[in-house]
Amino acid sequence: MFKTKLSHLIKEKNSLLCVGLDTDIEQIPKFLLKEKDPLNIFNREIIKATSDLAIAYKPNIAFYETLGISGWYLLEKTLESIPSNCIVIADAKRGDIGNTSRKYAELFFQSYQFDAITVSPYMGFDSISAFLEFEGKGIFILCLTSNPGSIDFQYLNVESEPLYMKVARKTIEWDLDYGNCGLVVGATHPEDLGSIREAAPGLPFLIPGIGAQGGNLYTAIQYGTDSQAGSTLINASRSIIYASKEKDFAEVARNSAKDLLTEINRLRNVKLNY
Amino acid sequence: MFKTKLSHLIKEKNSLLCVGLDTDIEQIPKFLLKEKDPLNIFNREIIKATSDLAIAYKPNIAFYETLGISGWYLLEKTLESIPSNCIVIADAKRGDIGNTSRKYAELFFQSYQFDAITVSPYMGFDSISAFLEFEGKGIFILCLTSNPGSIDFQYLNVESEPLYMKVARKTIEWDLDYGNCGLVVGATHPEDLGSIREAAPGLPFLIPGIGAQGGNLYTAIQYGTDSQAGSTLINASRSIIYASKEKDFAEVARNSAKDLLTEINRLRNVKLNY
Repeated sequence: MFKTKLSHLIKEKNSLLCVGLDTDIEQIPKFLLKEKDPLNIFNREIIKATSDLAIAYKPNIAFYETLGISGWYLLEKTLESIPSNCIVIADAKRGDIGNTSRKYAELFFQSYQFDAITVSPYMGFDSISAFLEFEGKGIFILCLTSNPGSIDFQYLNVESEPLYMKVARKTIEWDLDYGNCGLVVGATHPEDLGSIREAAPGLPFLIPGIGAQGGNLYTAIQYGTDSQAGSTLINASRSIIYASKEKDFAEVARNSAKDLLTEINRLRNVKLNY
Repeated sequence: MFKTKLSHLIKEKNSLLCVGLDTDIEQIPKFLLKEKDPLNIFNREIIKATSDLAIAYKPNIAFYETLGISGWYLLEKTLESIPSNCIVIADAKRGDIGNTSRKYAELFFQSYQFDAITVSPYMGFDSISAFLEFEGKGIFILCLTSNPGSIDFQYLNVESEPLYMKVARKTIEWDLDYGNCGLVVGATHPEDLGSIREAAPGLPFLIPGIGAQGGNLYTAIQYGTDSQAGSTLINASRSIIYASKEKDFAEVARNSAKDLLTEINRLRNVKLNY
């Protein structure tokens, strides 16, 4: 079960940290470009430097796909570098009609052996069911995203509550049947994050928006974690992996991850003792 | 301009037909499996047999991606087989935060030279703007999809109209700024299709759901086409490309496409003379 694996890892490693692998040839340290396989070396070194701190890695699939064929090789090699005591989440934001979703579910869960995936809710149940039917995998449904455009539709008022809350409630229903659902809720909406957590106390949250996007860590922990301060993944991508663009990039990434984790755990304790 | 190209092709070829290339190793004629590159041969023969009838092809990206590296080769070769007097739409249903969407836009519009793409609206403007900014390309935004799950969120009531209508209205706004937006509206919701057409008279519609999904062609034409009975693409995938699984598959696909186009044009005339 995905949720069991997640809470087990949270306890074992005393961490909620997810590192987003938004790996981009224009952003990695320049000195790596003279190597044969710079993106693979970059990911491998970042993972090696942070895998005792992180409980999850989240490759953003767009960054790999857009490299064409070499991107899929890179994804394969990256997954090989991630130790088994870390969860791997495909940040794919897919959603399509049934026969197509099944293809995607097979790609990410069977061919690439991801533990979890992010999916878009707009097309409804049959666009998500193919993922839900994979036992043991986690399905993070976009609920309230961290980007400015979240205001356009997610906040529309549906029967006196915002659309994102309807998505959360529908996800709770699906979770009753399948037991493997979670929600993506951006740290850039701290108070709304609290109301979603109140409505869905038992669901894992994947919280992006910390770091480069400016989301607030204090409120993410305060409002986003459940009563055991678990079942939550705090994701940071650029602020960790691009913390330095020099030879020491892996070490500086580790320090940045460590600082973030220390702060996460300090805030978890503040919350527990509140 | 995408819209100019579309209306030009509609007139020139007297067609609204889009052929969906949901190419699947399990569905293509068995005798092709002994060839070296069966999926490529299948697509090439289907395209050769239908390209005077169709004004557009729509490869469903999931079917290619899920083949891994060989799927991207297949996509490349398929695009090479499509003559220049046809539009090529990437049915990708993407939508992600700005820096990620830009990556996708580059992949589909620059690397693969697609004319248009389908995108998911849930994450709002900044998840779509990277696509909109590509001049000359068409952006079809999921509005009311053809699948059963469309009921889950798209019909939610927002200020006395359904969510899909809010998506249509927002798309009209974006189109005023960029001039290259269209809507995906399923043929399985004939009356709602009419109300969306009424709200968005000038936008191209991509209408899936005819054929295997059971959408009604009469109502798709009656309600979906604009006043010049143009600016509309009627998509059929499985009912054309898998019309026969024997040696005559390309010929039968052509006949199926021809029958559909004849019926489309008969109904367009009925509407014009109504």
